[in-house]
Amino acid sequence: MIEKFLELGVVKFGIFRLSSGLESPFYIDLRNVLGEPELLRWVIEQYREILLRLKFDIIVGVATGGIPYASILGYTLGKPISYVRPEAKEHGTGRLIEGAEVSGREVVVIDDVLTTGKSIIGAINAIRSAGGIVAGAVVFLDREQCGSRNIKTATGVEVYSVYKMRGLLDRLKDYIDEEQYRSVINYLAQWRC
Amino acid sequence: MIEKFLELGVVKFGIFRLSSGLESPFYIDLRNVLGEPELLRWVIEQYREILLRLKFDIIVGVATGGIPYASILGYTLGKPISYVRPEAKEHGTGRLIEGAEVSGREVVVIDDVLTTGKSIIGAINAIRSAGGIVAGAVVFLDREQCGSRNIKTATGVEVYSVYKMRGLLDRLKDYIDEEQYRSVINYLAQWRC
Repeated sequence: MIEKFLELGVVKFGIFRLSSGLESPFYIDLRNVLGEPELLRWVIEQYREILLRLKFDIIVGVATGGIPYASILGYTLGKPISYVRPEAKEHGTGRLIEGAEVSGREVVVIDDVLTTGKSIIGAINAIRSAGGIVAGAVVFLDREQCGSRNIKTATGVEVYSVYKMRGLLDRLKDYIDEEQYRSVINYLAQWRC
Repeated sequence: MIEKFLELGVVKFGIFRLSSGLESPFYIDLRNVLGEPELLRWVIEQYREILLRLKFDIIVGVATGGIPYASILGYTLGKPISYVRPEAKEHGTGRLIEGAEVSGREVVVIDDVLTTGKSIIGAINAIRSAGGIVAGAVVFLDREQCGSRNIKTATGVEVYSVYKMRGLLDRLKDYIDEEQYRSVINYLAQWRC
């Protein structure tokens, strides 16, 4: 299933500018998974295996990338669903967290890709401000750029990932050229956590 | 199941300012449904019944309210999923539509609540700019403020709704007071489509 990631452009090699402002020799776009029902089913299954080992009441997605996964996981596991918006709505009943009430309940945070951890830290802070207890964060891919350590340091919350970037790269090794492989390894060496 | 809408604050009575800038004597917040697995299952079933009568390849959610419903429906129906963001991302592979490729394919647009139709018209235009063919739009609740006609006039696309506001109000009649009922009826009388 993993080679589909290249075929479908879920993993791309080149020069990309991330939302964190950093440049990267690879780009992970898990959103393409949404267009492939069979691949999506497999990705959901990987998330599920991690979630089944955690104790929690509510699944909270980080907008917007984490919302589809959190919604499907919540629905299939029969758990209440929420999502954290980047900022409060200006109109209506403006709130940062939409969906299930998190106050006094154990929450798992779901996102697709972890880079610096900024979005997840923001989500954890929003959940705690609303009285929620964060039991953990689950991402599909940890880019291994210290995001996991940043989250742990800033919030004490543990991050669980289906794949770490070096692990994914090893799985893709037979499908990419040596230079692509090297550029990613060299790039990742910048982060020492 | 419908009386749960009042109990859970999915329908509220008071004075509310909508994202369209309009004031309203009621507020519909379908996001609260996400917090109630049993109610969510019922809502998804209602959407499904409409979707099963339509011919389409892809389900596209309107951000952010439509994304959870589009994701769950796509997953359970085995259809590719996309969503339309309000504006393109500044970084990464900036795109207005995230997820399944819509070009040359028949698309159903999913949103939670229809007011003026502005968001859905924006989504339809984005899908068409990307080469998609819009087969219809499906919402859970049509507030009956000419949104359906506005969409039809601007784009030619048909809107299907699980509930229209007056129909929902009639179903809730036994649970609300006469004044609340009247204020909504008088308010809705402003729109003649």
